[in-house]
Amino acid sequence: MTDSDTHDISRRRLLGTAGAAGAAGLVTGAAGITAAVSEDGSANGSGAPGALTSVGATAVAFHGRHQSGITTPLQSRGHLVAFDLAPGAGRKEAAALLRRWSATARTLMAGGAPAEDTDVARDAGPSSLTVTFGFGRTFFDRTGLAARRPSQLDPLPAFSSDALDPKRSEGDLWVQVGADDSLVAFHALRALQKDAGGAARVRWQMNGFNRSAGATARPMTSRNLMGQVDGTNNPRPSDPDFDRRVFVPEGASGPQAWMAGGSYAVVRRIRMLLDDWEGLSREKQERVIGRRKSDGAPLTGDTETTPLKLDERGPDGKPVIPVNAHARISAPEQNAGAAMLRRPFSFHDGIGADGVPDAGLLFVCWQADPLRGFVPVQRKLDRGDALSPFIRHEASGLFAVPGGAAEGEYVGQRLLEG
Amino acid sequence: MTDSDTHDISRRRLLGTAGAAGAAGLVTGAAGITAAVSEDGSANGSGAPGALTSVGATAVAFHGRHQSGITTPLQSRGHLVAFDLAPGAGRKEAAALLRRWSATARTLMAGGAPAEDTDVARDAGPSSLTVTFGFGRTFFDRTGLAARRPSQLDPLPAFSSDALDPKRSEGDLWVQVGADDSLVAFHALRALQKDAGGAARVRWQMNGFNRSAGATARPMTSRNLMGQVDGTNNPRPSDPDFDRRVFVPEGASGPQAWMAGGSYAVVRRIRMLLDDWEGLSREKQERVIGRRKSDGAPLTGDTETTPLKLDERGPDGKPVIPVNAHARISAPEQNAGAAMLRRPFSFHDGIGADGVPDAGLLFVCWQADPLRGFVPVQRKLDRGDALSPFIRHEASGLFAVPGGAAEGEYVGQRLLEG
Repeated sequence: MTDSDTHDISRRRLLGTAGAAGAAGLVTGAAGITAAVSEDGSANGSGAPGALTSVGATAVAFHGRHQSGITTPLQSRGHLVAFDLAPGAGRKEAAALLRRWSATARTLMAGGAPAEDTDVARDAGPSSLTVTFGFGRTFFDRTGLAARRPSQLDPLPAFSSDALDPKRSEGDLWVQVGADDSLVAFHALRALQKDAGGAARVRWQMNGFNRSAGATARPMTSRNLMGQVDGTNNPRPSDPDFDRRVFVPEGASGPQAWMAGGSYAVVRRIRMLLDDWEGLSREKQERVIGRRKSDGAPLTGDTETTPLKLDERGPDGKPVIPVNAHARISAPEQNAGAAMLRRPFSFHDGIGADGVPDAGLLFVCWQADPLRGFVPVQRKLDRGDALSPFIRHEASGLFAVPGGAAEGEYVGQRLLEG
Repeated sequence: MTDSDTHDISRRRLLGTAGAAGAAGLVTGAAGITAAVSEDGSANGSGAPGALTSVGATAVAFHGRHQSGITTPLQSRGHLVAFDLAPGAGRKEAAALLRRWSATARTLMAGGAPAEDTDVARDAGPSSLTVTFGFGRTFFDRTGLAARRPSQLDPLPAFSSDALDPKRSEGDLWVQVGADDSLVAFHALRALQKDAGGAARVRWQMNGFNRSAGATARPMTSRNLMGQVDGTNNPRPSDPDFDRRVFVPEGASGPQAWMAGGSYAVVRRIRMLLDDWEGLSREKQERVIGRRKSDGAPLTGDTETTPLKLDERGPDGKPVIPVNAHARISAPEQNAGAAMLRRPFSFHDGIGADGVPDAGLLFVCWQADPLRGFVPVQRKLDRGDALSPFIRHEASGLFAVPGGAAEGEYVGQRLLEG
């Protein structure tokens, strides 16, 4: 951490308590924070009003093998934003933009402030801020880098249940901002938008949310706006094949050599048709999903993490987990092991023009290759998922998210200067 | 708390830690929560992953002299929603609706679930949920209650800087939902919308946010999206004249006798023209406001809570706090003591059609009489506030928010059955 990074933190005289570090990438009690606590002379762990708790004090590392915001625990607030390069902007302008963006992300994620600050996040800790950058398919033509566009960015197949709005889909560049404080997230987003300057302009923006830290006793998985426990079957960083599924390997060669340590993000704005969904009885909802609503356990019993017994049949001879149940169709064992790391935010933009809630899921999933993750699973879901009548895919994006920047490097440098 | 209220909490097996109770109306460690903790057998105070902290466990009382959501500490998430009575719905339907709404609010605020639950808030604690109900001017004609419409609901004067959208202004009924968890807030909003059934339909909805608990060490006041400390000069419940300023007195007579213990809410969607604002130097911004940006202290010095020295002049002979500074013009001592309790949420709905952020303040202020609160202050601001070029009032509402319901009573009963 540089002096300029720590300067603002010190000024803020943070009162911090070092929370328990969670999953990989969390740097609670990072250097700058610790210094600030010491300067104030009192690490306040009482939870008294005015104390910066671990909610605010937690900082996520910017530098590393992977970018942040992929395995980072879900934050309570998120923004997804796509940018298009401005007319006339090419590789040089894009490189300068990624350099600016990386510097801003690094400073803000450590709890610092940019040189010309709006002060919106002043007094607040980094609040688990993450900023993640990706490149869309169109980026490569516009920057003369078509030869280095990986085939993994080939357009996703059309699905029969798609109702995609091109204006809210794809884009040259993609930024994901997450934080456990809405003002910290807004502050970062605004700084990044300003960094874009004349080089790029916002194509679309989506705002989302998840549970607040401490609002629930559920240890692992959150619920979505249909009330379902969501994410149970996610691969876990402790799984032996987690890295292989989620990240491009270090030895990658060919057009995607620059993607080593990176991942591909599929983004879908999935509207939930809540009036229709909520019109179903609980029992019918559970048969659509194949899991109990109360705790996410499979209809074949036990707990949330118990494997689905897909062959089990009820007294009527029919499968207990129906053949078109969402959990069955999307299960890795039904898709030759295809798996992706889902890391979504919910959205709720009020009442739509159609009079029903404009709400649902900002679905974001991560994989080493979309053809071994999202695509085969979505193809199967598209054919026979009982959930389909209750959701609508309204926007889509596919982005190559390069590996994390080493010290002194910016995100995407291996592509833009390689 | 009834058995049916506690039932669902027990099912959820909450792990709770009783946080320090804050301002009036907070019921941390309410009966239902305590019981749930006991049933689980372990009150978990370690802040370990999976623990329900005071963020989730805090419940606000539904019953009381005043409704919740007025003096309740600001929550991190808020929804403002106006409803219009459906064609043909009158006093009877309105009374039944308020009865349903009150029952739902009471159950959810205690951490319970409605009979037909969506499960979206399942596993979560009440998370300081508040639900506040109000009546707009048009409500009284539609329900045959024009004789009991208080003069305090007379239309606000037009202000020269208004650019109001009627479709997002006013309304027969108004509901404010606040919570420290976005899913808890969504869950409540959805339940209330469903309660409306055929009796009322949504006229407009706005979504807002504030700092997350624990994200900042600042003890009192939050910042807005201009980066300013906002709310410093707010009256405090400990002020001797707080009740008189904010609440209709118990002895009220005439058309507003039913408003005893109630308050009037003025709601304004105030767009911030952030590109223009952020184009000003910090020094110019501070002269517009009359306060330092860093800590909210007056330009005449000392700390945030130090009174403004309005007569102090600089070496150039000019007032240190400029004559058109926002803090000077809105100061109670400049407005014959007119004061209101401001309790806003920030909003950020992405990029507007005009290419700049659709962001700003969902300004909500509370007073015993708008003619002695919002109106005189806004009139002065309208004439000469240096902040005016940087904001735009885009929507407006004025609502009579009756006193809190006693046990066995519903909100508004004294009007609808009086």
